[in-house]
Amino acid sequence: MHTDLVAALDIGGTKIAGALVDGHGAILVRAQRPTPSQEDGDTVMRAVEEVLGELRAAPLWERAHAIGIGSAGPVDASTGTVSPVNVPGWRDFPLVERVRAKAGDHLPVELIGDGVAITAAEHWQGAARGHANALCMVVSTGVGGGLVLNGQLHSGPTGNAGHIGHISVDLDGDACPCGARGCVERIASGPNIARRALENGWCPGPDGDTSAAAVAAAARAGDPVAIASFARAAQALAAGIAATATLVEIDIAVVGGGVGKAGDVLFAPLRKALGDYATLSFVQRLTVAPAQMGTDAGLVGAAAAALAGMAGTAAAGV
Amino acid sequence: MHTDLVAALDIGGTKIAGALVDGHGAILVRAQRPTPSQEDGDTVMRAVEEVLGELRAAPLWERAHAIGIGSAGPVDASTGTVSPVNVPGWRDFPLVERVRAKAGDHLPVELIGDGVAITAAEHWQGAARGHANALCMVVSTGVGGGLVLNGQLHSGPTGNAGHIGHISVDLDGDACPCGARGCVERIASGPNIARRALENGWCPGPDGDTSAAAVAAAARAGDPVAIASFARAAQALAAGIAATATLVEIDIAVVGGGVGKAGDVLFAPLRKALGDYATLSFVQRLTVAPAQMGTDAGLVGAAAAALAGMAGTAAAGV
Repeated sequence: MHTDLVAALDIGGTKIAGALVDGHGAILVRAQRPTPSQEDGDTVMRAVEEVLGELRAAPLWERAHAIGIGSAGPVDASTGTVSPVNVPGWRDFPLVERVRAKAGDHLPVELIGDGVAITAAEHWQGAARGHANALCMVVSTGVGGGLVLNGQLHSGPTGNAGHIGHISVDLDGDACPCGARGCVERIASGPNIARRALENGWCPGPDGDTSAAAVAAAARAGDPVAIASFARAAQALAAGIAATATLVEIDIAVVGGGVGKAGDVLFAPLRKALGDYATLSFVQRLTVAPAQMGTDAGLVGAAAAALAGMAGTAAAGV
Repeated sequence: MHTDLVAALDIGGTKIAGALVDGHGAILVRAQRPTPSQEDGDTVMRAVEEVLGELRAAPLWERAHAIGIGSAGPVDASTGTVSPVNVPGWRDFPLVERVRAKAGDHLPVELIGDGVAITAAEHWQGAARGHANALCMVVSTGVGGGLVLNGQLHSGPTGNAGHIGHISVDLDGDACPCGARGCVERIASGPNIARRALENGWCPGPDGDTSAAAVAAAARAGDPVAIASFARAAQALAAGIAATATLVEIDIAVVGGGVGKAGDVLFAPLRKALGDYATLSFVQRLTVAPAQMGTDAGLVGAAAAALAGMAGTAAAGV
């Protein structure tokens, strides 16, 4: 039997990437455009259409059996619309319908959030492979995530499940831009790690770099304020991961993104804090691991969702 | 086709109930013993065996095709063992094996935690009926719960999923007996509602009743300290419910148990606080409803799990 191909789109605030991906996750054809994120909705869509046009021009396109889309959120898989925070021209934008119009009505389209897409990639090819129950997170400018439950991607009815960045772990805490208080993202994202370090007296080096990566470097060099800011982020992540494990039973939490790359500066206090919050017997075996997928995670995950959707449709006899 | 029966066991710290239940959830035969909760493990098991013995003596027993057990937790469905907090004689007690020995090796046995059992009952017959994604909670001496995801009970590999009482919503908060801090149960359980009211100057009536029900009565009569204690419990419950919705996408949260019976004293501030914490677009449609099942919820839910297990086995072609 020949290997089916799927088309994958990874739509973010910076770039729109597309690919044709085979059943082993290999990327055979690529296309990419910058996201004209501050333009009107049709202009943004034209960039998507250009990416799709390049893919359709490839001879392999005729072997594509489905399209998977991972998009910056929020998304609504139930209506096929997206409203990415960083793309103001798209509010309840009918992305699935517009992609179908360009790519052909015969192709099934799966829409998921970008955190769910990353999770699909880590489960298929990365650090969550072989785990039937997993949380995968991206800790960077924001904090996103996704869940694998019972061996399947759990995207939820609207494709947004796993939004660990916006669960409150500090119900009286600082106001979060989402409207709640004390969200994991409000404490653990890169900008919040940097802000807290600066507020507590951390002085950046001569290059003036005030990024979380610079705080991580300072922490590695022993700066106590930088270490404390990462420890606080780790505590919030641990409370969120423990909450997830206590609610749905996961056996691994995979942490990626720019902050995830900080290494032991993050993972050492994270593992310690997990011991403080993951206390019930059935969550004590939980492990934490760094993400393994690189910049193609969004594309590979969107492809995984498209393949899983095809398999589900086949299983349902449709 | 005749309706299959299942046997159900509901094992708590106070009583051990058993029943034969039909495919519509009707209880046809009952048996019950008090739980000798402070005795040794074999003595507790003898009470279970007496309940099973009564069920086996019923002519309908020969139509029972499976056994469902809902037990006070923690349970471990992967090993068939239970370690109920309030039954110290049972630690990693091989309940499934012992039930099989008494009931017959040919019957499949499904073991789930009591919060999961209540959830199965509310989904089958109660307030969560017709909802594909639901959280059901028991707010009483403790705070327990369970999840329905994609139309199926999500019990998790060990049968403990949905333990919302022990997720932290206040990462720097008061120490919880579980070892963590700021758990939902530490803020919202009946004893904690009463404790907080007393600490803040609430005076019980002439009958000296310091239960959460008495605090609820005082709140209904306008006592501001009693109202504030329920509002704080509602805030913690809202943060936990919102976290659950944000993580797995649920469209209803069902609240039962003694505290759940407080009515508007709880539900009015709970619905208000949910607006503060359930902020993302995909969780804003979430509703909250009181539980509908009565004292048989544990039995009906254990029966539902047994029936679902039989259906799953049949579907798998085993």
